[in-house]
Amino acid sequence: MSSDRPSSSIDRRVLISGMALLPALSGMRLVGIAQAQTTQGGSLASWNDGPAKQAILDFIKATTDRASPNFVPPEERIATFDQDGTLWVEHPIYSQVIYCLDRVPAVVEKNPKLKNVEPFKTVLSGNREAIAKLSMHDLEKILAATLTGMSVDEFNAEVKKWLTAAKDPRWKRPFTDLIYQPMLEVMQYLRGNGFKTYIVPGGGQDFVRVYAEGVYGVPPEQVVGTAGGTKLGYHKDGKPFLTKEPRLLLNDDKAGKPEGIHLMIGRRPYAAFGNSDGDRQMLEYTGAGDGARLKMLVMHDDAKREYAYGPAQGLPASKVGTFTQALYDEAKKKSWIVISMKNDWKRIFAFEQPA
Amino acid sequence: MSSDRPSSSIDRRVLISGMALLPALSGMRLVGIAQAQTTQGGSLASWNDGPAKQAILDFIKATTDRASPNFVPPEERIATFDQDGTLWVEHPIYSQVIYCLDRVPAVVEKNPKLKNVEPFKTVLSGNREAIAKLSMHDLEKILAATLTGMSVDEFNAEVKKWLTAAKDPRWKRPFTDLIYQPMLEVMQYLRGNGFKTYIVPGGGQDFVRVYAEGVYGVPPEQVVGTAGGTKLGYHKDGKPFLTKEPRLLLNDDKAGKPEGIHLMIGRRPYAAFGNSDGDRQMLEYTGAGDGARLKMLVMHDDAKREYAYGPAQGLPASKVGTFTQALYDEAKKKSWIVISMKNDWKRIFAFEQPA
Repeated sequence: MSSDRPSSSIDRRVLISGMALLPALSGMRLVGIAQAQTTQGGSLASWNDGPAKQAILDFIKATTDRASPNFVPPEERIATFDQDGTLWVEHPIYSQVIYCLDRVPAVVEKNPKLKNVEPFKTVLSGNREAIAKLSMHDLEKILAATLTGMSVDEFNAEVKKWLTAAKDPRWKRPFTDLIYQPMLEVMQYLRGNGFKTYIVPGGGQDFVRVYAEGVYGVPPEQVVGTAGGTKLGYHKDGKPFLTKEPRLLLNDDKAGKPEGIHLMIGRRPYAAFGNSDGDRQMLEYTGAGDGARLKMLVMHDDAKREYAYGPAQGLPASKVGTFTQALYDEAKKKSWIVISMKNDWKRIFAFEQPA
Repeated sequence: MSSDRPSSSIDRRVLISGMALLPALSGMRLVGIAQAQTTQGGSLASWNDGPAKQAILDFIKATTDRASPNFVPPEERIATFDQDGTLWVEHPIYSQVIYCLDRVPAVVEKNPKLKNVEPFKTVLSGNREAIAKLSMHDLEKILAATLTGMSVDEFNAEVKKWLTAAKDPRWKRPFTDLIYQPMLEVMQYLRGNGFKTYIVPGGGQDFVRVYAEGVYGVPPEQVVGTAGGTKLGYHKDGKPFLTKEPRLLLNDDKAGKPEGIHLMIGRRPYAAFGNSDGDRQMLEYTGAGDGARLKMLVMHDDAKREYAYGPAQGLPASKVGTFTQALYDEAKKKSWIVISMKNDWKRIFAFEQPA
C-alpha cells in the first residue's frame, strides 16, 4: 500500500468528465437534510411484482422461517449495500466529488498560495470543460486537500452544512432526496426481519456516515467505506481530537469490499446489493457461503426516470459504476438477480408518485 | 506505517520474559469453551458496594433516565472495553502469545526448513529460559508465522480448536474461564440498558472475534482490535477466500485505540474501561465528550485471588499492561474511577464462590 494516496473517497475509475454535463457546481441554499421516507410495515410498496421482488420475499422466508433448512440465526443476519448507483444516483458524477469541488474555494481561502496552483486554479475558474479534463492525479490532489487535514469534527460539520444547501442540478433537490425509494424499502424490510444493514460504499466512509443514519436508518458503525487513517492530537486545554490524514487504510472497491467487510464486520453477508464491476467481489464472497444468499445488481436502464448507461444495456460505458457485459454474464451464470429500474420499480424516488 | 510489521496481535511492550514463570506451554486437552456465566437481570452481584459500583449505577441513571439532563439516545450508547487485564487475565503473559508459541510446531511441520532457524528452533527446544529471552524482533517473526499466511477460515478453526484444549497453568482451566465475572456483569448491565458493548483489545481482532460472542456476548462486528490486511484469492472452483497478510492496518494500542474507534465505530464512547497506559488515550477521548461519561480503570491489586503488579500498587512494572503512577495520577486528577480488584469485587471468576 502506498502511503501517498489520498485517504479518500472514490475509485480510480471516477473520471470527472461527467462534470461537463453539469450546468454549474451545486448551488448553496438551505433546504434541510432529507429524511428517509418510510413505508408502512416494511412492505415493498414501490416494487412491481416480478422475479426481483419475488427473490427478496423468497430469501426472507428461507432465512427467517425456523422450519426452513436455510434458517439463519438473527445475530448472523448481515446485509451489505453498495451506495453510489445502488442506493442513490451516481450519474453523471459522484456526489462526493461535487462536494470536494465545492470545497475548493474554502481551501484556497485558508491557503491563498494555492490560488495559482493547479489543479485548484482550474477548479476556481469555473470552466467546466477544463475541470472535466483534469487528470486522475489532479483529482487526487483535490480529494486530499478537501477530505484530509482537518479534524473529524470539522469535516462532519462541513459535510452536514453542504448537504443542507447543495442541490442536484437535474432534479433541483438535495442529493439526499435522490435515494432510490425501492432500495430504502428493501433495507427496512430486511431490518424488520432481523438483518443488520450495512452500507459498503466505494466512497468515503466518513462522508457517508454524516447522513447515513438520518437518510438510510444506518448508524455510522454500519458504514464500511473507503477509509483513511486519523491521528490523535491534543488541544491546548488537553482535550484530544482526531485529524483526518491522507493515508489510505481501505480502498473499498472490488477486492477491497470483501476485505473491508472482513475487517469491519468479520462475518460473511447473507445478502449483498451492488450495481457495478466494483461490487462483483462482494457478491461473489456473499455467494460463496452456505445456505440461502441473496445477490442483487441494480441495472440502470431507465433513461426517462433516472439514467440508462453501461454495456449491460448495450450502451457506452459510463464514467461511473460500470456494469460490464462480463458482470452481466456472470450474474446470469450464477443466478444473481438483476434489478431493472425500468421494469421492477414503480417509482425511483420518494418524491415521485408511483407509476 | 511500515509494511513489514506482523498483522498481529500484541503491543511492543509485550515481552515474553513472563514465560519463565510458566510451568510449561499450555496442555492440550478437550474441555469445551466456557460460556459466559450470566447473572439475573443484569445485576452487579459480584460487586461490593463502594464508589466503583456506585459510579456505574449513577452513570446508567444519568444516561438512560429521560428526565436526566445527560440522557443519551439509545443509538448513541456505546461502551468500549480493553480486553487483556480488563476483561480477563493478562499476567504473566498474554494468552494470544501462548497461542502463537503453541502453534510453532505445526508451522514447522508445514515448513520443515524452519526447524533449524531461529527463533523457531528455540521455541521448539521447550527451553523456557531461552524462550523468555527472545527479542521483540524474534517474537514478531513468531507472530507473523502463526497469525498470517493462512485463510481466515483456517485461522478461525485453529483458534477454536486451541481454545477448547489449552489451559492456563495456574488455574488449570481454559483461558476463557479466566474472564472477570464482575466485568461480564458490567457488560450485561450496560447492554440491558441499551448500550452496545465493544471490545477494543490491543490484541488481534481476528483472534478475539473467535470467542467474543460465546464468552462475552459481543458479536465479531463489535470487536475493534489490532488488525492486519487480508487479500482476496480464488480456489480452483472459483470460490473466493481471504488470506491473512502480514500488513498492519491498525495497531490498537495507545493513540491507536481512539483512532481505531473512529475507524470502526465512528462515534465517541460514553463509557470506556481499561487497565493500563495503553488505554489512557481511549479514556481521554471518551472523557472529552459532553455529558456523563464513565471512565474506569481496573487495578491489579489482588495477589491472592489474581495478581498484584504495577507502579500504581507500589510494585515493580509488569511486562504486561503497565498501570504507571502517571496514569494513576491522571485518573485521580480527572476523577476517573479506579477499580480495586481486591476491594471492589466479591469474586474474580465465575467459578469462585463470592467472598
